[in-house]
Amino acid sequence: MKTERVGIIGCGIIGASWALTFARAGYRVKVWQRGEAPVLDRIRRLADNVAGTGSELSAEAWQRISIETEIARALEGVDYVQESIVENLDQKAEILTAIERHVDAATTIASSTSGILPSAISRRLRRPARFLVAHALTPPHLLPVTEICPAPETAPHVIAAAVELLKGAGQSPVVLKREIAGFAANRLLGAVLNELFALVGEGVLEPLDADTIFTDGFGLRWSVIGPLAAMDLNAPAGVRDYLARYGSIFSGVAESRGATPALIADVIDRIASSLEALSSAPAADRAAARDRAIAQVKAMRSTL
Amino acid sequence: MKTERVGIIGCGIIGASWALTFARAGYRVKVWQRGEAPVLDRIRRLADNVAGTGSELSAEAWQRISIETEIARALEGVDYVQESIVENLDQKAEILTAIERHVDAATTIASSTSGILPSAISRRLRRPARFLVAHALTPPHLLPVTEICPAPETAPHVIAAAVELLKGAGQSPVVLKREIAGFAANRLLGAVLNELFALVGEGVLEPLDADTIFTDGFGLRWSVIGPLAAMDLNAPAGVRDYLARYGSIFSGVAESRGATPALIADVIDRIASSLEALSSAPAADRAAARDRAIAQVKAMRSTL
Repeated sequence: MKTERVGIIGCGIIGASWALTFARAGYRVKVWQRGEAPVLDRIRRLADNVAGTGSELSAEAWQRISIETEIARALEGVDYVQESIVENLDQKAEILTAIERHVDAATTIASSTSGILPSAISRRLRRPARFLVAHALTPPHLLPVTEICPAPETAPHVIAAAVELLKGAGQSPVVLKREIAGFAANRLLGAVLNELFALVGEGVLEPLDADTIFTDGFGLRWSVIGPLAAMDLNAPAGVRDYLARYGSIFSGVAESRGATPALIADVIDRIASSLEALSSAPAADRAAARDRAIAQVKAMRSTL
Repeated sequence: MKTERVGIIGCGIIGASWALTFARAGYRVKVWQRGEAPVLDRIRRLADNVAGTGSELSAEAWQRISIETEIARALEGVDYVQESIVENLDQKAEILTAIERHVDAATTIASSTSGILPSAISRRLRRPARFLVAHALTPPHLLPVTEICPAPETAPHVIAAAVELLKGAGQSPVVLKREIAGFAANRLLGAVLNELFALVGEGVLEPLDADTIFTDGFGLRWSVIGPLAAMDLNAPAGVRDYLARYGSIFSGVAESRGATPALIADVIDRIASSLEALSSAPAADRAAARDRAIAQVKAMRSTL
């Protein structure tokens, strides 16, 4: 049981998944949802779907969740608020302004928005320094990555507190240095989808074949190793060698779609030095670990 | 034991992985590599890395691999050739011309090239109708997706034969309708990497955080469900609803990089009808299956 309390404001699919995530990790969770929504049933269904996998909620964890009918009570004494109402700027601004009135000055207020810039919200708040976006992939209780996109006014200690609390919830927070439309995750997803849409539109690729390229290819690889660490293993002398060999293919893709290639020397240096700091194990050992992990994911998958 | 025989020409990392793949599935495999390379050791190491996972080679499967010192003997009586020599057009054209001389008229000749257009090779062949590119992700013995990129002259029955043989090897062949630089897989990878390079270059995202977005996010998701099938579950009324809600985020990514958005009505129709044909199960059931599969991949991963 952790000492921090979390308020969940808005409990649709995302809010319910967040409630599960925080309660599972030991936080006390208070949930508020406008109207008469079957909130507990919603959380129950998410939990039941993963029963026996280690991702479910224990009976003890269930006790940490309370449903509040008054927003003021849901926010009383909470250290962190995860707002997950409908994706609409005016409605978000209105509820976040209400949240501000009910919480302590030290409470972190996070929005689950995936498409609204933090600054568009923060300029309508009284204390924007403690506001940020904490955007997870769907569903957060299974996909731990959570991108923290600060508003221009967000205080560094508020970002740090959110990182710690999310790590405590078993999430993998990733902090963006500044706000950008789509944040990072949906920009990367958008890049994939835009190329996929183009290939389908040009009649080069069938839609379901595109999905196969991920489920039997990149998804399998990236479930155990990220794209940069993977590049480091796919050329004899590492990532610089890989980009020297294949970088022109990737830049060619950008140019063929009218974009300017972003693969410049400074980027290569930053990637190479980050990967060097990550692991000093010989490439052959890392490749063996990658292979073994992929084989085990495949073996598990074949039993589903 | 299958009746078809496979010739592996060039046995570096990719060729060794292909030898393992075909032998594991029951094909008789003859391997030729220029010079005195430790070919068997190379295959052995790949197999040992995945011992006990179900992806290894049985003692019986080992017996199906023979190493040939004469290229003519490696190609005698084979039904399918997987060429995997160094990535260089002149050297590829030279070896593929030699391969043509040694095989039967009905033999399929596949190149592992990832970056050379099939037409650049086929125009230098005597019988281009039986040539195609069969490009797998690294390593093929663990990542089953294999894109078949035909040359303009490739005969349809040759494509069909390659599809059947690769399916027999446990691979997931995906056929491109026509050749395009980078084929499909490296175009999709390039799209991700280009956006990733841009975000790193602009100082928005740290390189290792980019990897986390995949290992603890999209990779985990795409190891069990493709990006299109995933979209279908991430909005109440399916993929059309999803793209109506979020399509502008993705198109905004394209525009911000100078590219023209490819999300047009025809593409949405093709994607939606492909997904409708894929499954008639209720979305809630498919979401539950997705959640359970992701939770099981996570549980397995946590034991590695």
